[in-house]
Amino acid sequence: MLKSLQSDILHEAESKDLKVIVISAEGPVFSSGHDLKELTDEQGPDYHAEVFRTCSEVMMLIQNHPVPIIAMVNGLATAAGCQLVASCDIAVASDKSSFATPGVNIGLFCSSPGVALGRAVPRKVALKMLFTGEPISAQEALLHGLLSKVVPEEQLEEETMKIAKKIASLSRVVVSLGKASFYKQLPQDLRTAYYLTSQTMVDNIALPDGQEGIKAFIQKRKPVWSH
Amino acid sequence: MLKSLQSDILHEAESKDLKVIVISAEGPVFSSGHDLKELTDEQGPDYHAEVFRTCSEVMMLIQNHPVPIIAMVNGLATAAGCQLVASCDIAVASDKSSFATPGVNIGLFCSSPGVALGRAVPRKVALKMLFTGEPISAQEALLHGLLSKVVPEEQLEEETMKIAKKIASLSRVVVSLGKASFYKQLPQDLRTAYYLTSQTMVDNIALPDGQEGIKAFIQKRKPVWSH
Amino acid sequence: MLKSLQSDILHEAESKDLKVIVISAEGPVFSSGHDLKELTDEQGPDYHAEVFRTCSEVMMLIQNHPVPIIAMVNGLATAAGCQLVASCDIAVASDKSSFATPGVNIGLFCSSPGVALGRAVPRKVALKMLFTGEPISAQEALLHGLLSKVVPEEQLEEETMKIAKKIASLSRVVVSLGKASFYKQLPQDLRTAYYLTSQTMVDNIALPDGQEGIKAFIQKRKPVWSH
Repeated sequence: MLKSLQSDILHEAESKDLKVIVISAEGPVFSSGHDLKELTDEQGPDYHAEVFRTCSEVMMLIQNHPVPIIAMVNGLATAAGCQLVASCDIAVASDKSSFATPGVNIGLFCSSPGVALGRAVPRKVALKMLFTGEPISAQEALLHGLLSKVVPEEQLEEETMKIAKKIASLSRVVVSLGKASFYKQLPQDLRTAYYLTSQTMVDNIALPDGQEGIKAFIQKRKPVWSH
Repeated sequence: MLKSLQSDILHEAESKDLKVIVISAEGPVFSSGHDLKELTDEQGPDYHAEVFRTCSEVMMLIQNHPVPIIAMVNGLATAAGCQLVASCDIAVASDKSSFATPGVNIGLFCSSPGVALGRAVPRKVALKMLFTGEPISAQEALLHGLLSKVVPEEQLEEETMKIAKKIASLSRVVVSLGKASFYKQLPQDLRTAYYLTSQTMVDNIALPDGQEGIKAFIQKRKPVWSH
Repeated sequence: MLKSLQSDILHEAESKDLKVIVISAEGPVFSSGHDLKELTDEQGPDYHAEVFRTCSEVMMLIQNHPVPIIAMVNGLATAAGCQLVASCDIAVASDKSSFATPGVNIGLFCSSPGVALGRAVPRKVALKMLFTGEPISAQEALLHGLLSKVVPEEQLEEETMKIAKKIASLSRVVVSLGKASFYKQLPQDLRTAYYLTSQTMVDNIALPDGQEGIKAFIQKRKPVWSH
């Protein structure tokens, strides 16, 4: 599943026609994470290491990907499934969804989901989830920063597609530059972050789509992107 | 406008009489950021670089300034205007205010506003704003950490001045020491942060206003600050 | 008080029988921080330095401790008392509780409480508390990430014990590994964080309780922990 997700995310990643990716699931569970049958002592530590390396690569791929990646969640997202939601750039969920890191119940602490969760929500929220394994509701997830938006189930696809279509209407090269810049500056000290992004702004203006956008705005017409 | 703001913020910055700064605007827009006519290819990359360097310097000046700086927002704050709100120490807004980073609509991603925004709100909130350009309400901004307080429009000045007057009644030198210490320790690891602030606490006690405050408390009287 | 707290927290810290610690108080004040009589110029800077060094050590000890530490708050928590709440892994409070860092009122800025507060809540919330000294309610504290849960006063002990008992029912060695891993990865860059936690996951699976938990889940029975 992780390799299939990785290959799907990478599919035509560099194509000008790809503007945004939506990750969703069928059925009442968004994702419940790893298949525990792959994690017994029969496979051994080398296989386990490969499983978690692949999982980490998929999560980092989402941040390093040139287009925004949206999680559309309708149901339960647990363990690495909760990590997947936390790793996406944007996450929209139906109000019946819930989120948990329950590994501790089966003696396998959700340490790597904690990487994404700990960067999305306050640590007191993350640690209560990690130490008790108990779920939080979509509303709590929104309140604490794990989600970008919560909607009734019947509006989930419409609202998610509204965001996706908005992104798809923009200049791909500008969105891509902005995404890379955001994640690059975030862990830096303030001076370095401003140094990096000031350069990004100048580079952005010099792009054909940067000039086209500004000209169109001044001329009060719609921009025509070359991407 | 940026140079005028910079010079206003620096005006008598070292004077004992300056205790707090409030940044506000007239009319329905707090600030909509850069003048796009300064960012066309007619000025060229060197001029653009100077614009963003000046902008970054103003934003960093706010954090490095000896007194607290409060944004009082009544209306729309977008792009570098939203960055200005996010960069202030405290932000109070009327409930009709809204906040957006809409640069992506005109092909100029709000990369440098993302520095301040990404340090104020959860990244899922920041990225939805940056990727879609759509505004959030004052209530959402409060919920996610971009604002310190939201009040009805008719109470905005009163509530902001209440905070400003409270700060102005305190010891300037103590507030100044505390502000510098807060921003210095925040990006450090926990051990370094505690090492730095333990020293700040000892230095603070040794100040005349540190001793006066403690003595006044023990003697159950009002402190008289020498600043 | 700090030395007594330190010694209590360290008491049988390595015992297999210790699974979780709850810090609570009697009376209407959870903790109002330092005794100001210890901070006058009569004791001198060396004594002050020792006080803050001890305080910082207690706060760091909470994070470095092998079992989860829960603050159960019923009343006022101010200055180093607010820092203590912010430093615990989980914090549950009654709805009548409130939280403040009022040192600035007596000329002693809450710089070291700001270390814990600044890592628990958004900086605009932290700075308003630090600059004005004014309290926030339990609901505001929950909203901004300082608390994990807020309940009516009469349910405080029951709800806190529910969380504590849940943690006590889990494998101590797994919880301990997970806690250490969470705090270790949090300040790292994403790649390092995933590198560290992928190794933690593999180590966790290799533990007897890791294998027991996974086997019990597959066999649809309750796990029996060896801790």
